Amino acid sequence: MAKPIEADVVLSCSEHLPAVDVWLVVDVLRATTVIVRWFELGGEELYPVDSVESARRLAQALAQEGCPPLLMGEENAIAPRGFDLGNSPTDLTRELVVSRPCAVMATTNGTKALLKAAATGVPVLVACARNALSVLDCALSRGSRIGILCSGRKGRPAWDDTLCAGLLLADLERRQPGLRLADGARLALLAWQSSSDLHASLESADHAVFLNKIGYGADIAFACRQDATDVVPELHELPDEDGMRAVLRRVPADAIPPGARPPLPRTARVPAAPQGDRTAPTGADRFAPLLQYARSDADHVFLGGGRHRKGK
Amino acid sequence: MAKPIEADVVLSCSEHLPAVDVWLVVDVLRATTVIVRWFELGGEELYPVDSVESARRLAQALAQEGCPPLLMGEENAIAPRGFDLGNSPTDLTRELVVSRPCAVMATTNGTKALLKAAATGVPVLVACARNALSVLDCALSRGSRIGILCSGRKGRPAWDDTLCAGLLLADLERRQPGLRLADGARLALLAWQSSSDLHASLESADHAVFLNKIGYGADIAFACRQDATDVVPELHELPDEDGMRAVLRRVPADAIPPGARPPLPRTARVPAAPQGDRTAPTGADRFAPLLQYARSDADHVFLGGGRHRKGK
Repeated sequence: MAKPIEADVVLSCSEHLPAVDVWLVVDVLRATTVIVRWFELGGEELYPVDSVESARRLAQALAQEGCPPLLMGEENAIAPRGFDLGNSPTDLTRELVVSRPCAVMATTNGTKALLKAAATGVPVLVACARNALSVLDCALSRGSRIGILCSGRKGRPAWDDTLCAGLLLADLERRQPGLRLADGARLALLAWQSSSDLHASLESADHAVFLNKIGYGADIAFACRQDATDVVPELHELPDEDGMRAVLRRVPADAIPPGARPPLPRTARVPAAPQGDRTAPTGADRFAPLLQYARSDADHVFLGGGRHRKGK
Repeated sequence: MAKPIEADVVLSCSEHLPAVDVWLVVDVLRATTVIVRWFELGGEELYPVDSVESARRLAQALAQEGCPPLLMGEENAIAPRGFDLGNSPTDLTRELVVSRPCAVMATTNGTKALLKAAATGVPVLVACARNALSVLDCALSRGSRIGILCSGRKGRPAWDDTLCAGLLLADLERRQPGLRLADGARLALLAWQSSSDLHASLESADHAVFLNKIGYGADIAFACRQDATDVVPELHELPDEDGMRAVLRRVPADAIPPGARPPLPRTARVPAAPQGDRTAPTGADRFAPLLQYARSDADHVFLGGGRHRKGK
């Protein structure tokens, strides 16, 4: 008899990681969405690193090895000095990716979560709403104890990642009616079940409010297109002078056994398309809320977005 | 115009603590329930410490100062060697407390959470379901940014504490309809709203399953009696040879302004009384599941309680 499937969700990177058979790492706004998009567009190898400085060093080393990478990522939501790209999936184009099919990426939460999961020694897959069904197919082929690691923000749970974890669990539960949920997974599933519309719910997250403010609303809509791709990036470790290098590669499509796909429509509706073009504020205005957000923990907690708007 | 009330919930002690005006610390199974009970029965001063060793040292120092305390607490859910009492609220009696009105307490999660909150420098109150309304009255008199710190278990969120935080938020929201909820608070409120019965929901928590197994089911029922008392313990710091000593004292009843109490019945029902007497297994059997639970992180995650029972 097959082992019963169990699921646990770690709501932020500051939590202790439980023992599982496979990790699905989620940073839906935006690191894991960007990574999946990178492979959708033909990317071959993506090196996640834990800091901007490490990214610069590794890019230099790879260039010396004859493979100059695209340098991607963010620090306080914008591209660090000298980086080729920031952390927006809508900035990626097929031409760009095909011309530089190797990338190095450093982000505040997402790449760190990938490396934390990697340290546990079990398979690590990159998950977001766009590859939900495929990443679950792949995870179920790796073991019965499914762990979802949410990157969170600043060492705390974030609504956006929790919601995405709940979306994955809802799919998993439809395939596996006897699914066992640990306490963290119950919370994530509740977040999803309380949301009648993925896009509307994701937009209410503190970080989404911030992204909207600085003109990245289109990225949120992009991240909400569920099951838009069957790309599943998986983490590998390569020997390096200093120890090991983590690298993401796409799992070959024929290596993912298609699971029993859910017959029912999902709970939350998927927006048909991004709502309008990105209309980024320009000049100094664009960075004022960004800098305030980046510098202040207190502001982050009670960020005054639409959800929090004061009455008259 | 009064400041709008904001609420945030930290789901486990491993999270970064945000800036708030007052902390309500929750470890409903069982540390904060025991502490509130201690003051209900006439206790005067309770010193929370972070380890069994610190508890022994402080008890010795207090005895030398002429005030021999009751030594209370747990390590892996049982009273450490040489302690007068464990961590069960139903073991406390008025006679015992009145005869030794000073206590030292060390628990795995709850007392550590109190000390972590204390380090932020804002008022710290002890909260559980039994003093829900009173602790909120008191908190609202201290500021507009209410933080609830859940102790959690082993550095991760626990269903029992999250549920209790949600119960507090539901009361707060009825008094303050425009209440602003940060992401962590939204999750806790969902946990509460998904529960039609406090006792049944609390019993489904991993730690409650364990307490039931080792014969402490009566403690769970005891912890579920909402608003059974108006006792609110508050943390103070006293100069000590080594720095500061944290001590809990009861907030005088006339120092708590009664708030606008909610006119509606609560969402979840309160059990009328504990369901039967405690029927603790005896002998070695009692400790086998306990030791397994205490030693293994992996077992904790997917603990096989009633909620997880396998089908045939």
